[in-house]
Amino acid sequence: MSSLSQDSSTAILLVSCRDQPGIVAAVSEFLFQNQGNIVDIDQHVDQENGIFFMRVEWEIDGFSVSRDQLERAIAPLAGRFSMTWSLYFSDVIPRVALFITKDNHCVYDLLSRQESGELRMEIPLIVSNREDLRSIADRFGIHFHYFPITKETKPEQESREIALLKEHGVDLVVLARYMQILSPLMTEAFPNRIINIHHSFLPAFPGARPYHSAHKRGVKLVGATSHYVTEDLDEGPIIAQGVTPVSHSDAVHDFVRKGRALEQSVLSRAVWLHLNRRTLVHTNRTVVFG
Amino acid sequence: MSSLSQDSSTAILLVSCRDQPGIVAAVSEFLFQNQGNIVDIDQHVDQENGIFFMRVEWEIDGFSVSRDQLERAIAPLAGRFSMTWSLYFSDVIPRVALFITKDNHCVYDLLSRQESGELRMEIPLIVSNREDLRSIADRFGIHFHYFPITKETKPEQESREIALLKEHGVDLVVLARYMQILSPLMTEAFPNRIINIHHSFLPAFPGARPYHSAHKRGVKLVGATSHYVTEDLDEGPIIAQGVTPVSHSDAVHDFVRKGRALEQSVLSRAVWLHLNRRTLVHTNRTVVFG
Amino acid sequence: MSSLSQDSSTAILLVSCRDQPGIVAAVSEFLFQNQGNIVDIDQHVDQENGIFFMRVEWEIDGFSVSRDQLERAIAPLAGRFSMTWSLYFSDVIPRVALFITKDNHCVYDLLSRQESGELRMEIPLIVSNREDLRSIADRFGIHFHYFPITKETKPEQESREIALLKEHGVDLVVLARYMQILSPLMTEAFPNRIINIHHSFLPAFPGARPYHSAHKRGVKLVGATSHYVTEDLDEGPIIAQGVTPVSHSDAVHDFVRKGRALEQSVLSRAVWLHLNRRTLVHTNRTVVFG
Amino acid sequence: MSSLSQDSSTAILLVSCRDQPGIVAAVSEFLFQNQGNIVDIDQHVDQENGIFFMRVEWEIDGFSVSRDQLERAIAPLAGRFSMTWSLYFSDVIPRVALFITKDNHCVYDLLSRQESGELRMEIPLIVSNREDLRSIADRFGIHFHYFPITKETKPEQESREIALLKEHGVDLVVLARYMQILSPLMTEAFPNRIINIHHSFLPAFPGARPYHSAHKRGVKLVGATSHYVTEDLDEGPIIAQGVTPVSHSDAVHDFVRKGRALEQSVLSRAVWLHLNRRTLVHTNRTVVFG
Repeated sequence: MSSLSQDSSTAILLVSCRDQPGIVAAVSEFLFQNQGNIVDIDQHVDQENGIFFMRVEWEIDGFSVSRDQLERAIAPLAGRFSMTWSLYFSDVIPRVALFITKDNHCVYDLLSRQESGELRMEIPLIVSNREDLRSIADRFGIHFHYFPITKETKPEQESREIALLKEHGVDLVVLARYMQILSPLMTEAFPNRIINIHHSFLPAFPGARPYHSAHKRGVKLVGATSHYVTEDLDEGPIIAQGVTPVSHSDAVHDFVRKGRALEQSVLSRAVWLHLNRRTLVHTNRTVVFG
Repeated sequence: MSSLSQDSSTAILLVSCRDQPGIVAAVSEFLFQNQGNIVDIDQHVDQENGIFFMRVEWEIDGFSVSRDQLERAIAPLAGRFSMTWSLYFSDVIPRVALFITKDNHCVYDLLSRQESGELRMEIPLIVSNREDLRSIADRFGIHFHYFPITKETKPEQESREIALLKEHGVDLVVLARYMQILSPLMTEAFPNRIINIHHSFLPAFPGARPYHSAHKRGVKLVGATSHYVTEDLDEGPIIAQGVTPVSHSDAVHDFVRKGRALEQSVLSRAVWLHLNRRTLVHTNRTVVFG
Repeated sequence: MSSLSQDSSTAILLVSCRDQPGIVAAVSEFLFQNQGNIVDIDQHVDQENGIFFMRVEWEIDGFSVSRDQLERAIAPLAGRFSMTWSLYFSDVIPRVALFITKDNHCVYDLLSRQESGELRMEIPLIVSNREDLRSIADRFGIHFHYFPITKETKPEQESREIALLKEHGVDLVVLARYMQILSPLMTEAFPNRIINIHHSFLPAFPGARPYHSAHKRGVKLVGATSHYVTEDLDEGPIIAQGVTPVSHSDAVHDFVRKGRALEQSVLSRAVWLHLNRRTLVHTNRTVVFG
Repeated sequence: MSSLSQDSSTAILLVSCRDQPGIVAAVSEFLFQNQGNIVDIDQHVDQENGIFFMRVEWEIDGFSVSRDQLERAIAPLAGRFSMTWSLYFSDVIPRVALFITKDNHCVYDLLSRQESGELRMEIPLIVSNREDLRSIADRFGIHFHYFPITKETKPEQESREIALLKEHGVDLVVLARYMQILSPLMTEAFPNRIINIHHSFLPAFPGARPYHSAHKRGVKLVGATSHYVTEDLDEGPIIAQGVTPVSHSDAVHDFVRKGRALEQSVLSRAVWLHLNRRTLVHTNRTVVFG
């Protein structure tokens, strides 16, 4: 999971296509011919489904194809293998919206990592369905948008949220313990670009109050799962998971307490992976070039 | 989770009852009055249900009540608090039957720990529904009993198994990757005395082929769960759980491989806890005085 | 590691003394006689050194000894067994000073947990040897005290710091990635009341730049250790430890990044344990009634 | 860490050389031109030292270069980049000698994994400096060679051991809790081909009795480290590490017990990685293409 020091700009190409001979050779030859200094190259073949995945990152400095010509230069290569592909530049900072409700630990954690430079993102706005955490946005000088949501108002409010997100050029939405189920309106507007943290080891304990369910079942570990949000609640592609031990002597509120550090850790790892373009999604699973 | 060196014999009292004032005082006073040198004392109150649990272990040497009088001496105390209780002696070695099918890793692991003295148990017999692993029993000089089971023969075969287990004075049955579902006939004959290892983080992926299901779901950790077997498949009280990381690059057979060491570890821990009388079951959960 | 819901006030008694018969009986009898509803009782015997440790927590409500009479009521019991003991009340909120330098992740984490009520403490001041993180104190409305320190000025500056801490009634000092070695002046002023987070799995990689050393050694896990600070650098009693996996592909700055969530988790756990009076120190080791 | 099902034979090429442009392109082009179906390709660049590492695995079936021509076909490519390289075939089963003393858990674990097919190796002999575990070798029908060793006899005995290992065509020596320090005679005879399991989280607690040292220090986790053996005791390149939690209530013998499953797990992982040619050593560190 190496990453360059933050100074040098890189290009990142993410590719998926039907597995076939010669892809690695062709891509690496293309970069070599154009003086591309490869920083990182990873590939994966899903043998079961015959799908090829690749992530390659190279330095822009010294590369003989200019930025604005790059997409055009890649196109023939992509066409030859019928690739699905996307291209990113490490110095183009993603714009991220945080959705929160009343738990403060994940949002503080993301903000502190953004401040330290670990998470390279801009946060133009924070959205909430409650007023409770407005002061956090204020402290960090970020616009706080309050969208109270009821069953009746959800379609209208989500439409307004989507408009606001588009207006701010938001690339990624992070649900930092946002306690509202998103409708397809929202999930379709940001496919594989909404990351949630669920406080259980999915698929165990989906839905509401997972710590209560875990306590009732008498588990010996509690988990947290970060995943892309799809139309099916808690069923989206998993990016990262973690667990922490609990015992019979822990009450539900102890599960909640012990789970906090875990949720922070799992969510921030997932966000880091996404921001660094290390995730690919296929058939509801992720390839994570960690 | 301290345990005395294996030399000195101890008595172990396991207690559960309605929570009420004075239990700890009464039990500890009883032991103090009789020169009982307490080695370990643990208690737990289930605040939600108002249940008190206790495990106390003391040295027999120097205790003023003789072994054969001990139950009678405890009775008035137990009566006063309406205790459910059981009494064990550390030098009475439990007799354990291993049930296996075709995976060798858990059975070898239990046999090696018994041989080294870590697991203090006698293993009078190994039972299997297949012939595959007969050679393991032979190597260790343990009787191997082959009970092929079909849907039709299950009741009859289980009855024969139960008779055999009773005949050998078996206290505990360990399903060391035994690939047959037990009927209520068996589970009722050994309540809270059959330990299983399931190769998933329950309640995720119950039933057959959990590694396949986990792979399909795209989880980032695989788990193992050791639990007491009840009538409801994979729903019994959990004793121990563990997880190990996996990634998109692991095929199902890699999940299987990575899970083996985990299954061994989780199962042997659960068996150790049971043999050392550190588990209590209530409302389908365990109290583990680890 | 159960803890009551935050509403009911409790008394907590921490005890250590030479192991001898009858201690548990005497303490539990004392509480029973005075209508003390025990919430939690834990004991440990260090068999090697013959030392007995105990933590007992009971509800104040309904207890027949009043708060101001309690120390006097315990004294005879303590005298009988030559106990070292201390008494706390859960509704007396400890006052904590945070020492920081330039890394923001631990201080934000502690502040967010204090804000959410997980860590019950007051933070009257933040101390730093650099100006870098002043804005964090400002954001939370906490006094920030800047004490630049050189080899020459250390004695004088630490004296001023100690005076300031005493003036503010500080019970506990938390070094939240404070990059200065404390002199005996400070450690003796707050014995077992200064908690540090060291970014390695002690005793591996003590001293400066542990991630660099870990990287050079080629370890496959990086660790974090929270401990009480003593005169001997990184040698104090360990409260909590954790690890997280790394690989050959991680550069030093990846170790740093991956270590952050771990440091937060380990430090906040240690602080929680201390604030809830779950730690006892003896012969440079901790007993943690977790 | 994907691995093919065991049926299809593959060739594995391990490469290291000075980092320079075009290596990936050249290797993948070579395989593509010869109809090599790549199963797995991994590369790593040590940016600090400018070293390139690569592991590539492809199917022999359908590859246009025959086995006995393969080394010659690779030579020009290797020459062009001044590669250090080695070539393996997955169907050539490595021959492994196990060295043991008196602890049975690691040797049983390796034997059971060999029997199940997880570890593809032949075990022509077991070597020990004590007689204690001879019965294990007998049970598995493996030759047991007893080499008692004193300070005086070590050079002579090790010479005899080396001769025996050579005679049996041993590729890899696994020290499965072998309690004797190897002299340079042995380590030089099998460079990067002797794997040890040390029962601590190295570099913490090197040398003898690490669990005793860990207990004395009061750590909250115990570890295990598997590494290649070099002349410097416990200083060799680390292949795999793990930890498991302990507490104040664990005596040294509990550390020992809890460490067993960990040692098995860490050692068997390291052996699997070596047997599958997933390890490369450079400047006393490993690159593990896991």
